[in-house]
Amino acid sequence: MNNYKVDFSGSVTSPKGFKASGVTAGLKKSGNADMALVYSEEPCAFGAAFTSCTFAAAPVQVSRRHAAEGEVLRAMIINSGNANACTGAKGLANAEKMCELTAAELGIPSGEVVVASTGRIGVQMPMEIIGRGIKLAVSELSSDGGVAAAKSIMTTDTVEKHLSLEVELSGGRVTIGAMTKGVGMIDPYLKTVPHATMICVVTTDCGLTNGELSDMVCECTGESFNRITVDGDMSTNDTVIVLANGASGVKVANASDAEKFKSALKLAMQELARKMVMDGEGATKFVEIKVVNASSEAAARLCAEAVANSLLCKTAWFGCDPNWGRIVAALGYSGAEFDPGKVNVFYNEYPVVRDGGDAGTPESDLAKVLKNREFRVTVELNNGDSDYWVWTSDISYEYVKINAEYHT
Amino acid sequence: MNNYKVDFSGSVTSPKGFKASGVTAGLKKSGNADMALVYSEEPCAFGAAFTSCTFAAAPVQVSRRHAAEGEVLRAMIINSGNANACTGAKGLANAEKMCELTAAELGIPSGEVVVASTGRIGVQMPMEIIGRGIKLAVSELSSDGGVAAAKSIMTTDTVEKHLSLEVELSGGRVTIGAMTKGVGMIDPYLKTVPHATMICVVTTDCGLTNGELSDMVCECTGESFNRITVDGDMSTNDTVIVLANGASGVKVANASDAEKFKSALKLAMQELARKMVMDGEGATKFVEIKVVNASSEAAARLCAEAVANSLLCKTAWFGCDPNWGRIVAALGYSGAEFDPGKVNVFYNEYPVVRDGGDAGTPESDLAKVLKNREFRVTVELNNGDSDYWVWTSDISYEYVKINAEYHT
Repeated sequence: MNNYKVDFSGSVTSPKGFKASGVTAGLKKSGNADMALVYSEEPCAFGAAFTSCTFAAAPVQVSRRHAAEGEVLRAMIINSGNANACTGAKGLANAEKMCELTAAELGIPSGEVVVASTGRIGVQMPMEIIGRGIKLAVSELSSDGGVAAAKSIMTTDTVEKHLSLEVELSGGRVTIGAMTKGVGMIDPYLKTVPHATMICVVTTDCGLTNGELSDMVCECTGESFNRITVDGDMSTNDTVIVLANGASGVKVANASDAEKFKSALKLAMQELARKMVMDGEGATKFVEIKVVNASSEAAARLCAEAVANSLLCKTAWFGCDPNWGRIVAALGYSGAEFDPGKVNVFYNEYPVVRDGGDAGTPESDLAKVLKNREFRVTVELNNGDSDYWVWTSDISYEYVKINAEYHT
Repeated sequence: MNNYKVDFSGSVTSPKGFKASGVTAGLKKSGNADMALVYSEEPCAFGAAFTSCTFAAAPVQVSRRHAAEGEVLRAMIINSGNANACTGAKGLANAEKMCELTAAELGIPSGEVVVASTGRIGVQMPMEIIGRGIKLAVSELSSDGGVAAAKSIMTTDTVEKHLSLEVELSGGRVTIGAMTKGVGMIDPYLKTVPHATMICVVTTDCGLTNGELSDMVCECTGESFNRITVDGDMSTNDTVIVLANGASGVKVANASDAEKFKSALKLAMQELARKMVMDGEGATKFVEIKVVNASSEAAARLCAEAVANSLLCKTAWFGCDPNWGRIVAALGYSGAEFDPGKVNVFYNEYPVVRDGGDAGTPESDLAKVLKNREFRVTVELNNGDSDYWVWTSDISYEYVKINAEYHT
């Protein structure tokens, strides 16, 4: 795709001028870290994308307003353990209060702070705990706190997800840092653009305008977080924030710089999206669904998402069963128009469906592919030149266990 | 709903003039019965509905043509253990051949025979086995063979599903008999009407015209099989056939007779649809999702089906977890328009969401409801007067086991 070197030990504090912290306020029974703060010494240009769920959580509503009304952002406060969703006027006031408390501690306007929350829906925020957590998070801000921040936003995640990469622009080198969380309630079927899934924070010391960033966030989320699914359930709290403080002294100076930066940003988001699916609740497989030669991108997307969200396909993959009948059944009910007699399907390089029927590849070859941790399903519709891809996971006993027992 | 008495020991041979059989041809490794024949001594008026899957199986294509071109039907041959789907021209020829062999044995035109198949997709029919099975099925036809027929069409079903009921019309009493199969690859999101899910055969000795039956089948499937989901996957082979041979000597003579017969037919289909969900693969819960006061039936349907197919809701129910956050999240991404601040949700009579937030019902009361084998989720959108309901099941470890190991 491109040749940037991704450093998975990097984080949101890899770019110049950013500090972060991850602390334990006490929101989780487990006693794990539950609050993160990302802060820039300088005002930041920004881009943002939020869930299109009708029940957008209070922090999403507040952050959306701050992003819409503000010229710059300086900080993002994040908590895990409570989603502050479906909490009414009190929840909205609490989300606003989280920005105010953070702003007061940092000595900046509260309009320059955005907030994100993840955890159980429908429970009011315990504001005393939050208040203590914010004080603690500010006191522990440090220029190498990015990994701690990434750890503290995890819910059912089993690994923290963070990275950094460097981009050589005409004026010099800039750095991108990023972190994300979320391995359940993950669905690519997003109704509006710009759009995102779960919580992702990207920092950069590159100089960019809000306009430049907004366009890039729209395109990059559309080809990363909007392409993944774990369980087909979209969240009430999905948030992506990109902060650019210009601390490198290097600006996006021309179209070529913009292209370079955008492709690096997209790569960062795709690598994190991949990590989310790899870490999908109970997932044992990472599957790329690639639909090609469709009559339109919309048709290709219907097909890709039908297969990616098919419970029968996902359980078959868990069982290392190449059962292509379930793939064609999903294509058949996707709503996309195509000639079933022209459809070919492949597992990696092995054909399983040729002209809508069995391609005759030996089960033993297919079994080899299905036993891999990662494989690709390619669908050729052969009635056009549009395509679309989605990343998905299998559904295992562990997925059911996690989500049947989450409550208790 | 209405006061017909359903006899669950009844079957497709309860109405006068029908014979049936269920035999073991040898299509299944398990050695279980795998072929069924339903036959009427007299020509039958009929109604039919088929899957809207683009990959409609060969038997669906053949039966659709016989239903479209024929005036009457006399027999239906059904096999389990092989779906004859995605089998190309050879599969089509084999499905046609199944009608011809059956017709030859019965001494009737092959255009008066329809065929249905269920089982693995993409495998050619072993026609020698099928040929022997058809001979056997014809030789074993009997006027009390309905239950054996119901047993022989089962795949992952754990119980056979059959019933009969009697209807008093102006001219006298008529009988309806029915059987169905199918507990997986079951999804109500059907793109066209008339429509059905899985295989259902209804017989009656009432006198009706094809036109009367077609309208009734469309309406009755729309309010029965089209309202159920187990796993959100629509099948390539869904088929509903209603055969009316008039052997009772009683006709639908007027509008009131037509209403009575239609409501009895609907009840028969609803009782069988309920049995399918109750027997859903690995299901431990039967859940009715009722969405009321929506701006349109389409909006109510989007909401009902989003909740009914939400993997997070279905796994929560398996865990007896009232987790209403997952319900509102599903409503929120359903695509339906409503004011989240006006939404109420109930488990049976207990409110869990009031005006889009926690209704404050004690967990202990909700736990009591969730521990039931059967309960209802009612969603009040409060922005109109349309409603829609769906029946769904939970998703358990057993579901994953069945579908991860189906292949082997």
